[in-house]
Amino acid sequence: MSDDALPASDEVAYRPAVLDLLGVLAYGELMAFTHLAADAEMAPTLPQKAGVARLAVAEFQHYEAIIARLAEIGVDPHTAVEPFVASFDAFHERTKPSTFLEGLVKAYVGDGIAQDFYREISVYVDDRTRRLVDRTMSDVGSADFVVTQVRAAIKTDPRVAGRLALWGRRLVGEALTQAQRVAVERDALASILVGAPGRPGADLAELGRMLVRLTDEHTHRMQRLGLSA
Amino acid sequence: MSDDALPASDEVAYRPAVLDLLGVLAYGELMAFTHLAADAEMAPTLPQKAGVARLAVAEFQHYEAIIARLAEIGVDPHTAVEPFVASFDAFHERTKPSTFLEGLVKAYVGDGIAQDFYREISVYVDDRTRRLVDRTMSDVGSADFVVTQVRAAIKTDPRVAGRLALWGRRLVGEALTQAQRVAVERDALASILVGAPGRPGADLAELGRMLVRLTDEHTHRMQRLGLSA
Repeated sequence: MSDDALPASDEVAYRPAVLDLLGVLAYGELMAFTHLAADAEMAPTLPQKAGVARLAVAEFQHYEAIIARLAEIGVDPHTAVEPFVASFDAFHERTKPSTFLEGLVKAYVGDGIAQDFYREISVYVDDRTRRLVDRTMSDVGSADFVVTQVRAAIKTDPRVAGRLALWGRRLVGEALTQAQRVAVERDALASILVGAPGRPGADLAELGRMLVRLTDEHTHRMQRLGLSA
Repeated sequence: MSDDALPASDEVAYRPAVLDLLGVLAYGELMAFTHLAADAEMAPTLPQKAGVARLAVAEFQHYEAIIARLAEIGVDPHTAVEPFVASFDAFHERTKPSTFLEGLVKAYVGDGIAQDFYREISVYVDDRTRRLVDRTMSDVGSADFVVTQVRAAIKTDPRVAGRLALWGRRLVGEALTQAQRVAVERDALASILVGAPGRPGADLAELGRMLVRLTDEHTHRMQRLGLSA
């Protein structure tokens, strides 16, 4: 087996599962790029414009890393991302930020949940895929940048906090809706979490604990922004 | 003199001239980034989306290189780009692409003219600034990508060629209008071209030849796309 290949597995569903994982990651990163780039357009000052553009560029570089891995294992990127286009497009369609701050909070909340979720999932995949997921999901410094911007805005106008807290809840709601749709439609991807014959996964209790961890992390992020979750 | 500083010059106007040059370059690259990223959104397929995003990212990396140089010589980026914001914004406002192909042609034509122009100008600046300008203006592979896309589109539907040729002429017209505005408003920048007491520049005949070269190059680019200039 070449070093580039996926590890041999007794289990025939492992390859589609990893392809789904890379596909959903790739399209998520590409969409994060386009939407952050659009947010840069709304930024009121040059440093803010450049700051958001920098985040967008980091997301695109993650996309390139995933696409390179897909190429190594002989998969056409389009095939890998196609199953997830509708969900991401629906999510972004329903969560169009109408201000620069909403765009920032969206990037922060979305990135945060995605990072937590992919890290949870990556426990169940092979080493090489895990390293790629970890690298792709490394914080690109967006957290500090966003926290500084949002806290400053709230300090200037405290009414901002209430509106952004509502916005944060809406983002999570829409993200959950789309995640559920993906889980239902993509058995292979879901099987990474819950396992498959011959491959261990999380049991129900562990899934419950995972959901608690994800929710807790989200609450902490909102608090860091100075917002109630 | 530290290696980071601009070369000493007898001529008091040299520093403002270089700051203008770096400022106009920086803002042009940042705007190229945001507009290309927006075009990625219009791309009909994933490879096209990623292709345009890749161009956008390259432009942003150029922006970062220029900003780094400005920081070295102790200049706030905002101060340097501010004089050129209105012109670029007006140009982009008046040349909003309404299709993916128009976006590609705009990137190609705009980048091409900018590259030629900055290379002409860089003959008259110090070595370090010239190297930065050359690197910033290196073709990031956009030409090949755009040429392939536009030629394929014309092959599929030849009527596209007429509309895109018109679009190309409009782009050049708007670019000239804004360039003229900048030349009138920014004496320092203009002085790079025409020289100043104690510093050589182009004479009228050379300026005329330069304009011919720029026009010729533009015509060649349009021909490469399969369009009449």
